[in-house]
Amino acid sequence: MPLMQRSDVPRRTVYRFSLYLRALQRMEGVETVSSRTLAQVAGVKPPQLRKDLAYLKPMGCRGRGYDVAHLTGVLADVLGSARPQGVILVGVGNLGAALVRYQGFRKEGFEMVAGFDIDVKRERRADLGLVLYPMSELRSFVQERGVRMAILTVPGAVAQAAADELVAAGVLAILNFAPATLQVPPGVVVNDVDLAIELENLSYFIQ
Amino acid sequence: MPLMQRSDVPRRTVYRFSLYLRALQRMEGVETVSSRTLAQVAGVKPPQLRKDLAYLKPMGCRGRGYDVAHLTGVLADVLGSARPQGVILVGVGNLGAALVRYQGFRKEGFEMVAGFDIDVKRERRADLGLVLYPMSELRSFVQERGVRMAILTVPGAVAQAAADELVAAGVLAILNFAPATLQVPPGVVVNDVDLAIELENLSYFIQ
Repeated sequence: MPLMQRSDVPRRTVYRFSLYLRALQRMEGVETVSSRTLAQVAGVKPPQLRKDLAYLKPMGCRGRGYDVAHLTGVLADVLGSARPQGVILVGVGNLGAALVRYQGFRKEGFEMVAGFDIDVKRERRADLGLVLYPMSELRSFVQERGVRMAILTVPGAVAQAAADELVAAGVLAILNFAPATLQVPPGVVVNDVDLAIELENLSYFIQ
Repeated sequence: MPLMQRSDVPRRTVYRFSLYLRALQRMEGVETVSSRTLAQVAGVKPPQLRKDLAYLKPMGCRGRGYDVAHLTGVLADVLGSARPQGVILVGVGNLGAALVRYQGFRKEGFEMVAGFDIDVKRERRADLGLVLYPMSELRSFVQERGVRMAILTVPGAVAQAAADELVAAGVLAILNFAPATLQVPPGVVVNDVDLAIELENLSYFIQ
């Protein structure tokens, strides 16, 4: 990535990079696309799209539109989805199990490589098609396999302790579904997905 | 809501209202809290907190901190989580079933009232503890029960069609898990939860 400093790119822009990549992937067979069309398919306004893609310059081809194959490659490369990433799941309850079965991750280049849980009975959930280990083996697994990403689906009360273990093991990125605000050291990124907050947010806007 | 226009409040601020409410709910027995402490528990910076809460004014009590019970009540009322809201689930696959079992919604005042699916076999998933109907009954159910919120967990290819049906039935808010950019008329709100995008976003920041 010689053209930009990762830390200079706003987080919302990186989210939209993913939207643009999805939109481009739906345009099979198309050679070039105008910023207006791409923005519409991605669900953003054209000035926003142009501003976002300016972080990737030289990308713009004013008047001629974007080369679909080239822009797809650049975005996939920037987002790291061009190469598969191993992800571990911590907390194999209902939500965790559903995420294991969720096909969307693999399609985007993420492979669920193992699950961890404190509950020994859960470790025996053979129907998931995922190797399950007790939490006590988390650190050695992460270190041996060089895992850098984890999905956290434990109850809120134990989320910080689990996050501490992940960080100590060397995990750098946590997708957190637990209803807890995690404290992590600099260099570790957390994305929170709080489903109740999403509903609450919607509820606000329809009152 | 005499103190502000809902549409004037930025969407990210409304998300943070939910974070503040969660943080306050964890402070049982505390009477007043400083903006610094509340910001820390919620995981935001103090100036951000003060700026957000200014939308609720007159809330501030400079020097004395916020009254925990009062601010909790105001936020719960603003967010609409003070009274239970019925939500329907459209698409009862793996992810949908996990969401039915997810306890977090009810805790925050949302009640899953019915599930809809095109697959007749799925309609018979009695183990979910949720009444399941075929899609053909969606419109009459929504209209009779006055449902305004839906969770959409169908495949991407049929998401727009399902959203169109929801909108036609009178649903005003959709929590969309399908990997699709939904087009909805003004007055209808969509929140997207794309789990693959969340991972991709994390992947970007650890490269």
